[in-house]
Amino acid sequence: MKNYTSIKDISNLSETIKEAILLKMNPFEFSELGKHKTLVMLFFNSSLRTRLSTEKAAKNLGMDVMIMNVNDAWDLEFEDGTIMNMNKSEHIKEAAQVISQYADVIAVRAFPTLKDKAKDESEQILNSFKKYATVPIVNMESATAHPLQALTDAITISELTEKKRPKVVLSWAPHPKALPQAVANSFVEMMQNLEVDFTITHPEGYDLNPEITKNTTINYNQEATLQNADFVYVKNWSSYNDYGEILSEDENWMMTKAKLDKAKFMHCLPVRRNVVVEDAVLDSNQSVVIQQANNRTFAAQVILKQLLENL
Amino acid sequence: MKNYTSIKDISNLSETIKEAILLKMNPFEFSELGKHKTLVMLFFNSSLRTRLSTEKAAKNLGMDVMIMNVNDAWDLEFEDGTIMNMNKSEHIKEAAQVISQYADVIAVRAFPTLKDKAKDESEQILNSFKKYATVPIVNMESATAHPLQALTDAITISELTEKKRPKVVLSWAPHPKALPQAVANSFVEMMQNLEVDFTITHPEGYDLNPEITKNTTINYNQEATLQNADFVYVKNWSSYNDYGEILSEDENWMMTKAKLDKAKFMHCLPVRRNVVVEDAVLDSNQSVVIQQANNRTFAAQVILKQLLENL
Amino acid sequence: MKNYTSIKDISNLSETIKEAILLKMNPFEFSELGKHKTLVMLFFNSSLRTRLSTEKAAKNLGMDVMIMNVNDAWDLEFEDGTIMNMNKSEHIKEAAQVISQYADVIAVRAFPTLKDKAKDESEQILNSFKKYATVPIVNMESATAHPLQALTDAITISELTEKKRPKVVLSWAPHPKALPQAVANSFVEMMQNLEVDFTITHPEGYDLNPEITKNTTINYNQEATLQNADFVYVKNWSSYNDYGEILSEDENWMMTKAKLDKAKFMHCLPVRRNVVVEDAVLDSNQSVVIQQANNRTFAAQVILKQLLENL
Repeated sequence: MKNYTSIKDISNLSETIKEAILLKMNPFEFSELGKHKTLVMLFFNSSLRTRLSTEKAAKNLGMDVMIMNVNDAWDLEFEDGTIMNMNKSEHIKEAAQVISQYADVIAVRAFPTLKDKAKDESEQILNSFKKYATVPIVNMESATAHPLQALTDAITISELTEKKRPKVVLSWAPHPKALPQAVANSFVEMMQNLEVDFTITHPEGYDLNPEITKNTTINYNQEATLQNADFVYVKNWSSYNDYGEILSEDENWMMTKAKLDKAKFMHCLPVRRNVVVEDAVLDSNQSVVIQQANNRTFAAQVILKQLLENL
Repeated sequence: MKNYTSIKDISNLSETIKEAILLKMNPFEFSELGKHKTLVMLFFNSSLRTRLSTEKAAKNLGMDVMIMNVNDAWDLEFEDGTIMNMNKSEHIKEAAQVISQYADVIAVRAFPTLKDKAKDESEQILNSFKKYATVPIVNMESATAHPLQALTDAITISELTEKKRPKVVLSWAPHPKALPQAVANSFVEMMQNLEVDFTITHPEGYDLNPEITKNTTINYNQEATLQNADFVYVKNWSSYNDYGEILSEDENWMMTKAKLDKAKFMHCLPVRRNVVVEDAVLDSNQSVVIQQANNRTFAAQVILKQLLENL
Repeated sequence: MKNYTSIKDISNLSETIKEAILLKMNPFEFSELGKHKTLVMLFFNSSLRTRLSTEKAAKNLGMDVMIMNVNDAWDLEFEDGTIMNMNKSEHIKEAAQVISQYADVIAVRAFPTLKDKAKDESEQILNSFKKYATVPIVNMESATAHPLQALTDAITISELTEKKRPKVVLSWAPHPKALPQAVANSFVEMMQNLEVDFTITHPEGYDLNPEITKNTTINYNQEATLQNADFVYVKNWSSYNDYGEILSEDENWMMTKAKLDKAKFMHCLPVRRNVVVEDAVLDSNQSVVIQQANNRTFAAQVILKQLLENL
């Protein structure tokens, strides 16, 4: 593995999932692998799980970790050829090359604007690091993808499924703020690569990027879609077509115990209780969100391990 | 020890103080105890001593430390059953369970509002972590208590006293800002458990919570109270009865060299010079505030050691 | 070495440069030297290179590192004898002594006001730490000096020069914001101590402090000065005489490929492209700014090594 910016960077998914589950059983087995190697984590946005689990994963492998909130440093310019006479003090060309000299791996979190679709889809920040850095880049959630979360989700489904081909549903939920499509995108791409019967359900107008959903079944009827589901992944996202817009806050799309029936409830967290999902679901043992969050550590750890082995 | 949220969690105080003093003599004796154990430190408020000394204490024991200012993550909801459609993105139920999976011990700093007495006294933040976390919780100063500071103070008095039963006075001081009662509360509780002759002095209206002061002598006459004191602990707090109010900024309550006489001067720091105490006191060798601050490391270290031994 | 607050603290410059280059070849050779030693890094201002490279240097030596942005703690008072009844909560006297007990070395970044020349020249923050701390102080850029950068620059020139006595030019450049003289000052002092033919060029009115430039040649004609230069160090600074003022933004002073001729281009970074220097320079192999930034690690490491050896 050269970088981990998309789930497409995983060469052997089933092996990677197995390896993550082995790391979970014995987190310190490779605690010498990262000796004298440094992970630099760069945050353009807030983080709880990603920050703590990725730092923990790196330390489990014996790496040193240096964390920087980007606003502790300088405003970065990402455009080529600009005359930098406004408020951007440093160009990504320098920043990425410089940080590469202090790091063996660089992890970056950079959310979308949700205003400028073309800019977000160009993954300007993440791809600029990829272009100019001389060490591997790990995506800790970018404008359009959250591949560490998707790997966590795959690990969790692997751990929990009792079927060869479980039925998995991705179900849109209402939310008061406009949220990125990143988690949904990576989850869809991951499900397309797992042995699952996968359907997406959401209100009309909330179709994800068709280049990502491809031939995945999309059904606007939530109730029908949820029938006999084994895993229901609930997530809000803002509209892709009316880019970044909130088209509906219809609370009928909130996940309830009744709708969930016997399925496991999945969510990437943070989750707004009684907006995205009712308390009764989160507080039941059908919710596996805490297990998902725990698997974040081992998703990050297996990725860092594969990157370190390839240095 | 299961948690350290109050000095009541210390099962054997004199042994704990002795153990801390031994750790001070040999800080790295147990540097293998914390191997592959992680302390997560969560700050809802500013910190200098607590932050650095607790991190140092954990590292002295060989622990990994991950620090998060809570505003680097998501606004937390602490109420049960709410519809989370406002600005709180994550519920403490999830946050505490999730962080528990990345941590072996969680330390939390969460100051009071000083507006809502009932809420502050419920210790909503600290107790929510205690309720939902699955690992030990350390109080790095909560709404009503600062038990690491109180243990530091006990260690310092133990180190310095030349008497079997020294006279200790807690003396209120003026301050331009409304401050919590937490330090005073924990100091009072600690003194009630030490072999000391203890009196509190403050202006009328500044009585601390009577459930904490219990039968401790309170005297509104500072001058009389300070007679023959061996240790004078100076601290401002806002009114408990007129909750969070500043009733007096009477500079006659500032500690001076003359008033101190031959006593040792104690303060938890930060301290406002020439408001709380005059320069002449802080710059004399009667001031033991730097030694107190140093003992913060070993107070934290003995607590972490006892928690680790009990994991 | 007792402190590193100025390049004057280096007792043997050529040996120190050689030692840094050896550390670069084998960064982990002294990874036991810093065991159980702690570097506390205090930031009053933004930082990217200094923050990451100094942390990395300390970890290469096996030190523990604790980082604090000063706004995570309390506003500090630096004046003596003040009545602290405004917004400063803690006096440097206490802060420096307290932090000294948690640290074996304290590194401080504190930029100038660029408003109050006398205050800036007194180096109030740095010198207060030096005065009250009981452990060595490292200057991570103060009001008037950036000695870690100057050492980096000397290392880089040493690595790259093919001549016994290369021609080095410090050339002022335009910039939209008023910047400190610190980098220029320390570079000038460093060049005065190296075997180089050194000239400073800048527009009239931009003369640096004559107590620093001493008898260094200053030439207001950029073009003439650049003739046959081997190394051109480009840097903006605000006026020293009209203290902190921007007297010129004359883009004719921007460094170009044509002006640079065959010289190496140096800059401390961050650099504003097409304001301070044109893209064509930075994107050519005459630019050595990335190598300079890499050497920050080994400049910091050799200084920390010398401080640790002297503890």
